[in-house]
Amino acid sequence: MKVERDLHMSRGDGEDSYASNSRLQEKSILKTRPVLHKAVAAAHASSLSSGGGAMVVADLGCSSGPNTLLVVSEVLGAVADRREDLAMAAGAQPQHVQFFLNDLPGNDFNLVFQSLELFKKLAVKDKGDALPPYYVAGLPGSFYTRLFPDRCVHLFHSSYCLMWRSKVPDELAGGAVVNEGNMYIWETTPPAVVALYRRQFQEDFSLFLRLRHRELVSGGQMVLAFLGRKNKDVLHGEVSYMWGLLAQALQSLVKQGRVEKEKLDSFNLPFYAPSVDEVRDVIRQSQAFDVTHIQLFESNWDPHDDMEDDDGGLVLDGVQSGVNVAKCIRAVIGPLIAHHFGDHVLDGLFELYAKNVAVHLQKVKTKYPVIVVSLKASISRAPKNQANDKYYSGFTHGQFM
Amino acid sequence: MKVERDLHMSRGDGEDSYASNSRLQEKSILKTRPVLHKAVAAAHASSLSSGGGAMVVADLGCSSGPNTLLVVSEVLGAVADRREDLAMAAGAQPQHVQFFLNDLPGNDFNLVFQSLELFKKLAVKDKGDALPPYYVAGLPGSFYTRLFPDRCVHLFHSSYCLMWRSKVPDELAGGAVVNEGNMYIWETTPPAVVALYRRQFQEDFSLFLRLRHRELVSGGQMVLAFLGRKNKDVLHGEVSYMWGLLAQALQSLVKQGRVEKEKLDSFNLPFYAPSVDEVRDVIRQSQAFDVTHIQLFESNWDPHDDMEDDDGGLVLDGVQSGVNVAKCIRAVIGPLIAHHFGDHVLDGLFELYAKNVAVHLQKVKTKYPVIVVSLKASISRAPKNQANDKYYSGFTHGQFM
Repeated sequence: MKVERDLHMSRGDGEDSYASNSRLQEKSILKTRPVLHKAVAAAHASSLSSGGGAMVVADLGCSSGPNTLLVVSEVLGAVADRREDLAMAAGAQPQHVQFFLNDLPGNDFNLVFQSLELFKKLAVKDKGDALPPYYVAGLPGSFYTRLFPDRCVHLFHSSYCLMWRSKVPDELAGGAVVNEGNMYIWETTPPAVVALYRRQFQEDFSLFLRLRHRELVSGGQMVLAFLGRKNKDVLHGEVSYMWGLLAQALQSLVKQGRVEKEKLDSFNLPFYAPSVDEVRDVIRQSQAFDVTHIQLFESNWDPHDDMEDDDGGLVLDGVQSGVNVAKCIRAVIGPLIAHHFGDHVLDGLFELYAKNVAVHLQKVKTKYPVIVVSLKASISRAPKNQANDKYYSGFTHGQFM
Repeated sequence: MKVERDLHMSRGDGEDSYASNSRLQEKSILKTRPVLHKAVAAAHASSLSSGGGAMVVADLGCSSGPNTLLVVSEVLGAVADRREDLAMAAGAQPQHVQFFLNDLPGNDFNLVFQSLELFKKLAVKDKGDALPPYYVAGLPGSFYTRLFPDRCVHLFHSSYCLMWRSKVPDELAGGAVVNEGNMYIWETTPPAVVALYRRQFQEDFSLFLRLRHRELVSGGQMVLAFLGRKNKDVLHGEVSYMWGLLAQALQSLVKQGRVEKEKLDSFNLPFYAPSVDEVRDVIRQSQAFDVTHIQLFESNWDPHDDMEDDDGGLVLDGVQSGVNVAKCIRAVIGPLIAHHFGDHVLDGLFELYAKNVAVHLQKVKTKYPVIVVSLKASISRAPKNQANDKYYSGFTHGQFM
């Protein structure tokens, strides 16, 4: 498996597409609105104070579908609010906003680009003269590589992406260490495999922070939301159940002779859902960012279940919830499954998975823990040339590690 | 017809696609290499002297296929040459280059993005350490609207695009003036129609220059190559034959009852191939650019005919040349024809067209005149705030006229 080539949400806007099955991710964006609006205000202020030039905003892992432009809309709304509060009072010109929508090259950018005209009409209707002039570009590439020249971005945003790793840990991909019957960390995962996954997270997230710090202007902002772990016990993380039940469905197909056991044992997800402490540790070690906000919130597995905890923690219709969760997960992981096991397994696999989820939700109403962290670039400590040399020499060979 | 929605080259990389039928455009890019390399050197110098920040390069009307990244490759090669000559000697850091590939939203950006990884491998292999760090974004939108914030681009490039108009002239599209049996200016076109087309060119090109001037840094460069007219007589322009013979093929379909006459009469191309003098006049009136180079060169109609004039001006195999020209024109105009007349006319129409071209080429070896112009942004004369007001207020409503 090559993550940059094979990992992408289901394309197009049909029934099984990510565009039609991304309500969970939408809820997360709406939940993080206050944090995002604060970061936009800070980024806007820093872009104005740095004397002209547009405010540059990048959404990392933008995907394709309604959420892609929801982020653009939220940022434009926040800038419009700022404009009404500040700039207009002082008679200043509105700040131009330049957006970069980033995702891996397999993302359906054509779908996003074709919706821009309609989006503009709605935005103009909604915000009128307060709408700042804005420009939207698509930027293909992994956020574990450099995406921008030095010091040119004011705000990075990323939602539901940073639990994806740059690769499956080498020893696991090479078969030196095995995680029999699983596709991610679950109850029977050996400690050596857990250690590999955790190290991959630490390396990836640390790299991510260093790269973005180079690309941010002084005082630049980041808002990151991604799946995490509430349970301290890594073998029983909440998100582990999601993949564990999918691995169980694959085990059923193995038993039925429809999938080879070796295929399942060699399938490992490039994924890690960290705890808040693990996230905080990497940020601290990077010495590149100050944490302005960090929180963990929870979201019902079923994207269409809008009940709050004080409604009793019930799943009203387990069967329907199973179907809903399966659709959502298929839109995310379908292409990767199809690449490894073949297209033909998809329908049967996700039927079994929906049933497994339904049974599980009858026992306990599991939730996705989402970590939201807002960061401000700290002032660089490294002598400039030294840092440059390191990054440039790495760049030419396409690596930064 | 809505140009922004309906005008795009044939997508994908199949037999009829633009990607497989763009040798003519490739030859033009290679022909303009020396002009482009000079402009890159000037843009590179101005980006270095303006004190850090990346060199920003935009290719307007990039399309999808081998030519798209050929421009990126040429620019990177020219920067690498500069680096070896200048920057490395002075021990300076290499300049980062940020590319924006622009085209209308219907362009197949996914195809372009998916070829970036292979392109990078080849570029690294070819240029090694001299390859500057670079980044490639896709920018959907019409170049007759604002595409960038103020003063952030160092070099604009555009090849084989600026003969396309922003729209069919209103009076022609509305039916108040007619151009019976034609789809562009040809022998029987009334003077009123010629005037409308010419005015549309003047308005569009003037708008284009004003918009780009706002987006260019001081001293910024532009290299534009587009189809033009060598013949002073507008009714017998060389490119007019190309569309005239296609209109004849449509007339044949009308006679056969396969296309309604009204359909043909209401089909008008958003196109104008100007003379060098017409181009020069608009540039002079804009007062926004200094012409550093202008030339007209000619290219054989058949993209696979590499013979020069001193080979005798012969077409060796008229039938094959007819087929070659038809494939090339179908890749460009096929989607627009299909939108107006329906998919079902395409095969028959381009068979007839190939025959018409073959007959024509036996009589005279016609060529496409290509105008290449290299421009340098002149210093803005308008008081800054006044200009800002005008552009900003226009922006909010999505217009600049």
